[in-house]
Amino acid sequence: MTPSSLDELIEALRCLPGVGPKSAQRMAYHLLQRDQRGAGRLARALSHALEVLRHCERCNTFTESEICERCANPRRDASLLCIVEMPADLAMIEQTQSYNGLYYVLMGRLSPLDGVGPRELKLDKLIARANDPAVAEVILATNFTNEGEATAHTIATLLSARGVKVSRLSRGVPVGGELEHTDTGTIAQALVERRSV
Amino acid sequence: MTPSSLDELIEALRCLPGVGPKSAQRMAYHLLQRDQRGAGRLARALSHALEVLRHCERCNTFTESEICERCANPRRDASLLCIVEMPADLAMIEQTQSYNGLYYVLMGRLSPLDGVGPRELKLDKLIARANDPAVAEVILATNFTNEGEATAHTIATLLSARGVKVSRLSRGVPVGGELEHTDTGTIAQALVERRSV
Repeated sequence: MTPSSLDELIEALRCLPGVGPKSAQRMAYHLLQRDQRGAGRLARALSHALEVLRHCERCNTFTESEICERCANPRRDASLLCIVEMPADLAMIEQTQSYNGLYYVLMGRLSPLDGVGPRELKLDKLIARANDPAVAEVILATNFTNEGEATAHTIATLLSARGVKVSRLSRGVPVGGELEHTDTGTIAQALVERRSV
Repeated sequence: MTPSSLDELIEALRCLPGVGPKSAQRMAYHLLQRDQRGAGRLARALSHALEVLRHCERCNTFTESEICERCANPRRDASLLCIVEMPADLAMIEQTQSYNGLYYVLMGRLSPLDGVGPRELKLDKLIARANDPAVAEVILATNFTNEGEATAHTIATLLSARGVKVSRLSRGVPVGGELEHTDTGTIAQALVERRSV
């Protein structure tokens, strides 16, 4: 006897990562009972984001225009291309204020168990980007987890075969750790000590 | 340099209970990158629920009509009125299949520290409902937590002063426990052994 619109909301909330039936129910009641304004704002933000956000033609991150602001900025050093897994990783590197090159955001990592291979990760788009003659060096800044290391290794192999100079963040980042949760000092150090591969 | 629509989505996701900045970011990336269909569905479900759901005039639960199906059902025993905190509690009591009366859903509990007093909980609406001459007995089925007990005590005092017969679920429900997480057998037992207060 739950109203169908409430059932549908609870079911829809389960698409959020880590949200099971009980959490979804709690969230639905909270939104409807305690925060209708927040709920309306969330509905509008979701619709708007789905409508306007797309991937930057150059760096693949989320943007509202064809080329994102960062890629379009002539003051960034176009000879350096730093490859990260997610926009959150990019944000952490920016916070170190020790890097002025460009980025390429994979929007994921190779993960054969989850069915994410080179094709799903659109590595051809990355290779096309890295083949830009303006790029003198590609810096691999994927996470130092098993999947991130495997991703870095695969990309290094692909790019080296095409004569692109490839480096990897130094191991200042703890093995098994994730960029997003690392302090900026460590990331800055790892940028300085990047090694050729 | 995050697009404003992405920033706004991350900020809007924080209205969900228990979701901090990092979780909101992870959720936003997941929705946009991995589950755009789920995101669209969530946006529509939210808008629709906000539009059509309201509180039943009689029992205060969420419904799409003026009076919910349960309250409008002539086969339910209108002489019994069971008071619960949330719709999830009501659902648990229904699952015991040992109660055929009506309900009143508080949509919360007295919680002075969170600024929820008798006025915020709209206890006057409950009192008006319980004063219906058809109601022979009010069964308090708030949780057996401190706040639930305090809520039951306050309601019992208010209703007893108006000559309404009030009972409380027996202590078959473990002290400190919550209805939502109790097995139906225990709740059924507690319904049978309800005591006058």
